[in-house]
Amino acid sequence: MAEKYGRYAFRFEKKIYIAGYGNVAGKKESQGPLGNLFDQIEQDLYCGKKTLEQAEVHLQQTALENALRRADTKREELELVGAGDLLNQCISSAYSFRDSNVPYIGLYGACSTMALSTLISAMSIEAGITAKAAAFTSSHFGTAERQYRFPLEYGGQRPPSAQHTVTASGAVILSKQKSPIRLYGGAFGAIQDMGVTDVNNMGGAMAPAALKLILDYLQETDTKPSDYDLILTGDLGYIGWEIVIELAEKSGVDLRKNYQDCGLLIYDRQKQDMHAGGSGCGCSAAVLTAYVLPRIASGMLKNVLFLSTGALMSPLSVMQGESIPAIAHLIHLKGETV
Amino acid sequence: MAEKYGRYAFRFEKKIYIAGYGNVAGKKESQGPLGNLFDQIEQDLYCGKKTLEQAEVHLQQTALENALRRADTKREELELVGAGDLLNQCISSAYSFRDSNVPYIGLYGACSTMALSTLISAMSIEAGITAKAAAFTSSHFGTAERQYRFPLEYGGQRPPSAQHTVTASGAVILSKQKSPIRLYGGAFGAIQDMGVTDVNNMGGAMAPAALKLILDYLQETDTKPSDYDLILTGDLGYIGWEIVIELAEKSGVDLRKNYQDCGLLIYDRQKQDMHAGGSGCGCSAAVLTAYVLPRIASGMLKNVLFLSTGALMSPLSVMQGESIPAIAHLIHLKGETV
Repeated sequence: MAEKYGRYAFRFEKKIYIAGYGNVAGKKESQGPLGNLFDQIEQDLYCGKKTLEQAEVHLQQTALENALRRADTKREELELVGAGDLLNQCISSAYSFRDSNVPYIGLYGACSTMALSTLISAMSIEAGITAKAAAFTSSHFGTAERQYRFPLEYGGQRPPSAQHTVTASGAVILSKQKSPIRLYGGAFGAIQDMGVTDVNNMGGAMAPAALKLILDYLQETDTKPSDYDLILTGDLGYIGWEIVIELAEKSGVDLRKNYQDCGLLIYDRQKQDMHAGGSGCGCSAAVLTAYVLPRIASGMLKNVLFLSTGALMSPLSVMQGESIPAIAHLIHLKGETV
Repeated sequence: MAEKYGRYAFRFEKKIYIAGYGNVAGKKESQGPLGNLFDQIEQDLYCGKKTLEQAEVHLQQTALENALRRADTKREELELVGAGDLLNQCISSAYSFRDSNVPYIGLYGACSTMALSTLISAMSIEAGITAKAAAFTSSHFGTAERQYRFPLEYGGQRPPSAQHTVTASGAVILSKQKSPIRLYGGAFGAIQDMGVTDVNNMGGAMAPAALKLILDYLQETDTKPSDYDLILTGDLGYIGWEIVIELAEKSGVDLRKNYQDCGLLIYDRQKQDMHAGGSGCGCSAAVLTAYVLPRIASGMLKNVLFLSTGALMSPLSVMQGESIPAIAHLIHLKGETV
């Protein structure tokens, strides 16, 4: 039975490990600082498919195949998958997994989905409902732009505070079989809505949710930032990242040394003209599986807090004048000697 | 630790109870056979709000308040909520819960959400992550019609196989404190896609997913339909309900005696001109909380299998010629003497 530290933070009683991880990324992502870390690159947004949506399904299936291969696991050995994405009705995930007999949990956490799906699948192991489960998500520049903003052909201009949707997918396989990467614990976050209505500043809208969960987790577990090798948020981008550091400082917590954001790591913001950085479910999924987990596996990182952050508005709710509800979920990863 | 019977069915080790349940329904629903069973009725689709979407948020908040009242629980005592709905980006659920410090799991299971959210929240109790958790969902005729089909003002005609989206919300509070309604076990379903492409026949598209999970659950738990007082699917409507009975018979399982569907119970199909019956996440949520749970609490029903069923396509995927992936999730409820 999991140990609860407080309202949010908990530690799994069972030793739950990340048995495998996999990813695939697009061309723009391959040109960024993490470019040579991805398992595979798709040079074309269509990935050889008829529609951009089918391409996103292909990304998910590819990331999952790569994770299964590393975990030396067959798809049919999975006892559960938790998945979701940004598209209306989460079609990427549903179509990715439509021809399988694996129990499926559909999630909607916007860009918080990677941490959310990982926690849900781990919870199923802790509860004794599964022994092996997967979690995955994706985003795609083309499908997201035309659903949330404009079709790519329109060539719309965006303000500097806007982020660029990452084309990528990441997947993890969770199991009780010992591996160098342990999923030690985590926290489900609560929705925070500070009244931000500018959809071109989602980093600003999501920062309070991420900050609150970091501070709550540190306080409840009685730890401080320097206890961790890395604290990483999902896709706040440059503006959200700065807000988190500044507001943490006001709460007496110094995040300057070891706090980073996936949305900043994935692109070279200046050279690639990526405005405030990367966003989309695939951003934190790709950085987790291409950068964080391999470094834990190799012993370079030993104690990591990883948060994915999501903005839960819709184009309709924004048109109706509603503000942006935001959420973060946190997973706590530890390196183990095998 | 939960006991796993096979690939799908499991039984919770902890005694998990439904401490409270609540609902609210619309005018059409109040005129149906269950009309006098709902906690509250909203006569107007707008519920006094400015937009139909705000009205759906109001339905969710009302159902949850009613459930909290029955469970004698304050909102802030909840340690987790699992919720989702039919709207793009699940905005009803996110906006319902945006001003709370309760950890929130956003789900997308289309009309399977009531069983899915209940299982997820129960799993968090089984895992020791929470002691008290809520699950809720909703649907709204006006918000769903304009998102999935046409604005109400258009007055579109629909074929007899189409179903009518239920305007309602239902919520449950789960806890370890003994009550007359025990959540004994359940099963997460896998996606089934039999190639149906007609969005005006969602009952037909979803029937195979429901049937498979019923048959798997019976087989894995070594039980037969007559062991249950009621087997109830979410919203297959008349066509899906007939398919389930017919195909079950071909598998040698007789469902004629005690199998029903929420989409058939909620409307008087003939008098109310409701085509193939009710649909929408709110359909099974309202029937569960207004009809099934009170009957278990009063001892009229003792052993019930309740499945919610979801069709996971989007208007876009249908326009692109994709078939409809469908899913079902099952909860097993038992009456207990308190």
